[in-house]
Amino acid sequence: MNTEIPRISDFPTGEENIGYAQYFIGKSYMATLTTNKDLNVPLLNVTFEPGCRNNWHKHTGGQILIVVGGEGLYQERGKPARHLKSGDIVEIASDIEHWHGATAKSWFSHLVIACNPKTNENIWLEPVTNESYSEANQ
Amino acid sequence: MNTEIPRISDFPTGEENIGYAQYFIGKSYMATLTTNKDLNVPLLNVTFEPGCRNNWHKHTGGQILIVVGGEGLYQERGKPARHLKSGDIVEIASDIEHWHGATAKSWFSHLVIACNPKTNENIWLEPVTNESYSEANQ
Repeated sequence: MNTEIPRISDFPTGEENIGYAQYFIGKSYMATLTTNKDLNVPLLNVTFEPGCRNNWHKHTGGQILIVVGGEGLYQERGKPARHLKSGDIVEIASDIEHWHGATAKSWFSHLVIACNPKTNENIWLEPVTNESYSEANQ
Repeated sequence: MNTEIPRISDFPTGEENIGYAQYFIGKSYMATLTTNKDLNVPLLNVTFEPGCRNNWHKHTGGQILIVVGGEGLYQERGKPARHLKSGDIVEIASDIEHWHGATAKSWFSHLVIACNPKTNENIWLEPVTNESYSEANQ
C-alpha cells in the first residue's frame, strides 16, 4: 500500500505504474477497474504525483479520460493546455497527438477508457520538455 | 436547472430523463458526457431521486456503471442486491437481467457506459415491485 499518496478520489489507486514508467516523467499509479473483456471497455484509474506527465503519444482507437480527483493538464499538439479538475471529461480522437498529467503542484487522478480495444495501438513519442510543461502550468 | 437536486458529484446532472421515464419508477436525470461516435463509448451521467429505480432489463452488448455519488442498489435476477457508493464499478455482462437505482433514502448518481454500442439493444422488462425494492434496501 502506498501510504504517501493522498486520497483524492473514491476510486482505488492501485500499484506503481512500472509497466508504462518508460513513457512517463515522474511517478504514476494504476488500478485496473474492469475484467470482462467482452464488454470492450477496459477501464483503469491512473494517478499522477505532482509534476508527473506522460510523453506525447496517440491512440489509433482513441481514448476517454474521466477526471475524478486533483488537478491536471491535457494538451493536444499545437493547442493550449487544458486545465482539468474532477468532473471533467476529455474525448481524444484517434491519432491525435497529446499528453496528460498532474499540474506541478497537485496530485491528479483520471479514469481511462481505451476505446476500440480490439484494434487500438498506443504510439509513444517524445517526452514533454520542462519548458513546455512549465508553460502549460501557467 | 433543477435547483432541488443536491450536488452529490462533480459531474453534470443534466435534464429530467423524460425519454426513459416509462421504464423507471420515480424521477431520474440524465446528462450526455461524450459526443464522438467513433470512440464507441457513449458515456452518460444518470441521477436518481431517493426511491427511484429502473425496471428489470438487459443489454445485449452489456453495460458498465461507475458510481460517482450518493447511495444506490444493483441487483441481478436471483441474487442479493449490492449496495453501491462512490468509487464502485459494476460490470454487467451481456443479457444479464438486472435493475439499478437509488436507495430509498439517498440520491444516487452513476456514469453509464453502453458497451458494444454498434450492436447493443436494451430490452426492458417488468418494474421492480415495492416488495422487492424494500427487501433490497435492507
